[in-house]
Amino acid sequence: MLKDELIQRIRLDIEQSLKNTLSEINQNSYERYYQMLAYHMGWIGDGAGEQAQGKRIRPTLLLLVTAANQTDWQLALPSAVAVELVHNFSLIHDDIEDNSQYRRGRITVWSKWGLAQGVNAGDAMLTIANLAIQKLSPHLPCQVVNQSHELLLQTCLHLTQGQYLDIDFEIRSEVTIEEYWKMIEGKTAALFSACTQLGSIVAQCDPMTVQHYQNFGRSLGLAFQVVDDILGIWGDQALIGKSTASDLCSGKKTLPVLLGLQNNANFAKRWRKGNIQPEEVKPLADLLVAEGIQEAIQNEADSLTKLALEELDLAQPQGIAAELLYELTHQLSQRQK
Amino acid sequence: MLKDELIQRIRLDIEQSLKNTLSEINQNSYERYYQMLAYHMGWIGDGAGEQAQGKRIRPTLLLLVTAANQTDWQLALPSAVAVELVHNFSLIHDDIEDNSQYRRGRITVWSKWGLAQGVNAGDAMLTIANLAIQKLSPHLPCQVVNQSHELLLQTCLHLTQGQYLDIDFEIRSEVTIEEYWKMIEGKTAALFSACTQLGSIVAQCDPMTVQHYQNFGRSLGLAFQVVDDILGIWGDQALIGKSTASDLCSGKKTLPVLLGLQNNANFAKRWRKGNIQPEEVKPLADLLVAEGIQEAIQNEADSLTKLALEELDLAQPQGIAAELLYELTHQLSQRQK
Repeated sequence: MLKDELIQRIRLDIEQSLKNTLSEINQNSYERYYQMLAYHMGWIGDGAGEQAQGKRIRPTLLLLVTAANQTDWQLALPSAVAVELVHNFSLIHDDIEDNSQYRRGRITVWSKWGLAQGVNAGDAMLTIANLAIQKLSPHLPCQVVNQSHELLLQTCLHLTQGQYLDIDFEIRSEVTIEEYWKMIEGKTAALFSACTQLGSIVAQCDPMTVQHYQNFGRSLGLAFQVVDDILGIWGDQALIGKSTASDLCSGKKTLPVLLGLQNNANFAKRWRKGNIQPEEVKPLADLLVAEGIQEAIQNEADSLTKLALEELDLAQPQGIAAELLYELTHQLSQRQK
Repeated sequence: MLKDELIQRIRLDIEQSLKNTLSEINQNSYERYYQMLAYHMGWIGDGAGEQAQGKRIRPTLLLLVTAANQTDWQLALPSAVAVELVHNFSLIHDDIEDNSQYRRGRITVWSKWGLAQGVNAGDAMLTIANLAIQKLSPHLPCQVVNQSHELLLQTCLHLTQGQYLDIDFEIRSEVTIEEYWKMIEGKTAALFSACTQLGSIVAQCDPMTVQHYQNFGRSLGLAFQVVDDILGIWGDQALIGKSTASDLCSGKKTLPVLLGLQNNANFAKRWRKGNIQPEEVKPLADLLVAEGIQEAIQNEADSLTKLALEELDLAQPQGIAAELLYELTHQLSQRQK
């Protein structure tokens, strides 16, 4: 099979499996409850379509790991569904926690159906995600199912720990670089790491290989978040989009900001006064470049990507799925949005 | 062992196991995250103590079922912890969804730490609950652990379905009696039924016995909710407490209200005008008695309790744990608050 063909089939199967899983709750009396989740997934309602569905990076990563270990990746579809639904649970509740009215240009679930239904829809998504693991059952040993359940639930716990720190950072005046890493470890890296582990667990890899995949996913997740932070200040959206697209205007304590504050020069002086205006976004981003922050953070992203690639080497993935894993790692670290 | 001694030991072990489970997340950097959950459980903060902890009915029920089947009930402690934490997850998010500032005389988690942390604390509680099941592992077969995972997650799904209907009822002018039963089936009966099933699954009862325990728990849960609805209108709190204690003032569509509306007499006329004042609570409650609604609903509660007892008979529980199961069933159906 060609690379393009494999990735295409994986994407179609992910979407179909997600739809099958959620359609199980589309029962009599619960149509609207189902609609909230299907709307969030980008399948129905205003603005539905591919651009509303996200890139399904996490399940793709998971299935590629299974495929790169001489195992039928379709066996791992329940786990792939589970990680994508966990990701989407976190988005539904994030939007409430950040008071966000829009996501990918569409009204958020809680804004559309009210706070109460929004909280409950997130709870439903989290539950359906974990329940999806159970579908591994007919084809895989009980221990594999159990281990996957535990890993996914531990990951959800890490997500809430990262989220706790993220919410806490907003009301704190000082956040250390160490605390920043702890936060993104939970909020982003834990789920990436779960993807690569779950993919290798279904393939029943030996513990050492699972460990390399775990490390690969973790470093990839950290790199992913650091690139996100870079784009939040120097990305096209942040520089020329609406002011809300720049992390400088929202006052978020991302890595460039924390490094700028630690540097304690002109950027830090202005940032500490707060209330940064849209017209200041470009000059402040330039100031961070002049103070060497952009270079420092790009180095950080590059070294995390390098670490990820080293662990991937050690895991010894095989075939075209392996090639796709290397490509995906490069794509994510060099993405422009 | 005497009955009092058994119930006393069960209660102590439940509280200790709950504390052990939650203390695992009390790590460096996450102290406040832990505190939110421990505060909600009634262990720390203003007003902490037994009256803030609730009655731990669900885990007690679960352990009694295990004990009534010639099995060491301590084996089932992980499941008992899990159901109590699921119950408490639902309370944390209910308080947000109902915009409640107080629970058991104490400020609610979201009111104390803000909406964002409140939503996240509920997510954490739900996750820790499901993770607790994993602790069955060292002593029980993999299939028992897996079956318990699936059952608890299915129960969480039913909870969110019941909750969806409950939130939806608030904005609807018409709710049928059939819809009411569907709502409490998810919101209350599902978790009671999970308790009795989980207790019998740990005891590795045969499928027919598990089914009787499931039916017992379901009928007990429905009866529990109907009694709750009765107390919400004719209980001491509702009649002489603050106006907010009466379901008539809050406008909730509970079973007495729905039966009163169906009756379409004087109560229905007044209720449909809305905005019931505290001084009307007593006369309206009397009106429902005069219209025969109190008797009808009490008959409903009694017949559900009878059904529960019949299923319990069929499950053939043994020893003093069995006696305690019968007592608990009577206590819950005859409780005054």
